[in-house]
Amino acid sequence: MVKVLLVLYDGGKHAEEVPALLGTTQNELGIRKWLEDQGHTLVTTSDKEGPNSKFDQELVDAEVIITTPFHPGYLTAERLAKAKNLKIAITAGIGSDHVDLVAANKTNGGITVAEVTGSNVVSVAEHVVMTILVLLRNFVPAHEQVARGDWDVAAVAKQEYDLEGKVVGTVAVGRIGERVLRRLKPFGCKELLYFDYQALSPEKEAEIGCRRVDSLEEMLAQCDVVTINCPLHEKTKGLFNKELISKMKKGSYLVNTARGAIVVKEDVAEALRTGHLAGYGGDVWFPQPAPRDHPLRTAVNPFGYGNAMVPHMSGTSLDAQRRYADGTKAILESYLSGRHDYRPEDLIVYQGDWATKSYGQRDKINTVKQ
Amino acid sequence: MVKVLLVLYDGGKHAEEVPALLGTTQNELGIRKWLEDQGHTLVTTSDKEGPNSKFDQELVDAEVIITTPFHPGYLTAERLAKAKNLKIAITAGIGSDHVDLVAANKTNGGITVAEVTGSNVVSVAEHVVMTILVLLRNFVPAHEQVARGDWDVAAVAKQEYDLEGKVVGTVAVGRIGERVLRRLKPFGCKELLYFDYQALSPEKEAEIGCRRVDSLEEMLAQCDVVTINCPLHEKTKGLFNKELISKMKKGSYLVNTARGAIVVKEDVAEALRTGHLAGYGGDVWFPQPAPRDHPLRTAVNPFGYGNAMVPHMSGTSLDAQRRYADGTKAILESYLSGRHDYRPEDLIVYQGDWATKSYGQRDKINTVKQ
Repeated sequence: MVKVLLVLYDGGKHAEEVPALLGTTQNELGIRKWLEDQGHTLVTTSDKEGPNSKFDQELVDAEVIITTPFHPGYLTAERLAKAKNLKIAITAGIGSDHVDLVAANKTNGGITVAEVTGSNVVSVAEHVVMTILVLLRNFVPAHEQVARGDWDVAAVAKQEYDLEGKVVGTVAVGRIGERVLRRLKPFGCKELLYFDYQALSPEKEAEIGCRRVDSLEEMLAQCDVVTINCPLHEKTKGLFNKELISKMKKGSYLVNTARGAIVVKEDVAEALRTGHLAGYGGDVWFPQPAPRDHPLRTAVNPFGYGNAMVPHMSGTSLDAQRRYADGTKAILESYLSGRHDYRPEDLIVYQGDWATKSYGQRDKINTVKQ
Repeated sequence: MVKVLLVLYDGGKHAEEVPALLGTTQNELGIRKWLEDQGHTLVTTSDKEGPNSKFDQELVDAEVIITTPFHPGYLTAERLAKAKNLKIAITAGIGSDHVDLVAANKTNGGITVAEVTGSNVVSVAEHVVMTILVLLRNFVPAHEQVARGDWDVAAVAKQEYDLEGKVVGTVAVGRIGERVLRRLKPFGCKELLYFDYQALSPEKEAEIGCRRVDSLEEMLAQCDVVTINCPLHEKTKGLFNKELISKMKKGSYLVNTARGAIVVKEDVAEALRTGHLAGYGGDVWFPQPAPRDHPLRTAVNPFGYGNAMVPHMSGTSLDAQRRYADGTKAILESYLSGRHDYRPEDLIVYQGDWATKSYGQRDKINTVKQ
């Protein structure tokens, strides 16, 4: 009989109103009855901060821990050292950077870390395209203007552009980055660029109409819009700092739906303030929930525009919740049945070793120190 | 020597800050010097309402009147009757429904009405795709949440959907509607539908992956999202009233970037209030500027969400302003030179007759009574 610890965001009255909000503490991915019918124990909490959190109290004897990127239960080396029964950590969603993966490989002889690959890549790619359009077309101040009863077209048109004819580049062209480029194709951009250690096949490049740029700086210098679609690891943590942002075109736009810690928040806010960046948007923050005084909640450009931030939600649409709830259950079933017949693409670390290259090369472990 | 009367929106300090704001009373489409060097007179105003407006005073002896859909100088039959010298009315942009076209054909032996076809179709199509994503992905309340310092993912995820797998339909598949469908293609919608009196070629249908539906009601009943891309004329004025909206799916979304008068604003607001519509967005209003108490400024669904309105701006991005300023100048030059070598697609009425079918069939004149 297995103890499963589930860390999700609170749904409050919203979860009662909308049963499809599966990824909440109230609706528990829809797995409680299924687990309890098998005699297992489920403990669910959103309380995850500080040494006396419910998360800290319950993890000492949990065999399975499930958490999400939207409200991450950070599995630091210290917490892993306390989790003597832990065998598997499942990410209900994509991105397991909230787990210290180096420590995970040494915990209890090597725990399994698995995520639901693909469960929300489309959701995030859609959010990226939306955010690019929201920024370029200056939607936010325009909507605020009509909502407050004003009418001044010039005030908002003065920083409104078409996406057509612009250069867009993605940092990494994995499952999400590629989907973003495919969705941008019919917009008639001047160029679609990508930077990645691995090239797309020439066939895919031709199909999408995109071009690889060897150096990140060289790509940034050409882009009107940059979208970040790489995982967070030691090499990407703080990557977009003052120096790298200075390589971007003046007046360009930056969209980040990958992970908050990939940018230096103060440097992004400053680049907006000076107008070097015309806009910044996305849904990822560090830490999460974002503190009330997080500078990217309110950072704007000299016109007072250019902020398209939302809470971490791009991958948790109701459609995505259905998919990652199903995927989490499949991983759980694979574990609880003893079959361990996981989908290979879902495994991040397994049997004490890396099962993916997403967090860097095998020989250069790049996991983030939590 | 010709008197040209130009009605544009005011740019105020914005037009000084941004010289690319060509479509403002300050920057005058960039045509003042060019006209004056030829000895012509240019009078520019934004004052267009009521019988004593500058527009009304100046139109009595103007030979050319230029106005925009963003701040339309309504050329009613009464005004046309006063404009004894008028020979040509040019729309700097697309959509000449602010001119009483039946009266225009009888004014001074038949004036010319011309617009800059194509000048902002891409801009509008981009705005449509943005608005669909903003509504489905519940962007507005999510952005407001982080801006005010809160964090509650469930509160916004409870009405967040993917575009993938949804049915989207366009009312009319002209220059804008077709561009919208093409941009939606890679989003993996369940179906892309259109309603139009004229079918696309089978080749185009296959290329886009869309399907024609013979009856509007039948199309609406299948759509999660409906986008309006038809011109305003007598047959489309008030088309989306209570009865037609009741044929739409419960919880569906309506996007209107065509003309405000195509919907009955009170009926749309009521459908949002009851939740029959989950969202309404776009940039067109009647009249324009929208009065402070226009119900669609603040109409929301039962969750308090679902409003993605902006002022009339989708077709007046800085990129579009460049194109419609150039196009207006080309039409002017064609007129002033006496060559009258207009692009056929720019002509709406010419020599006392219809030059387009966009406002209905030739034998069934559908122009809106202003």
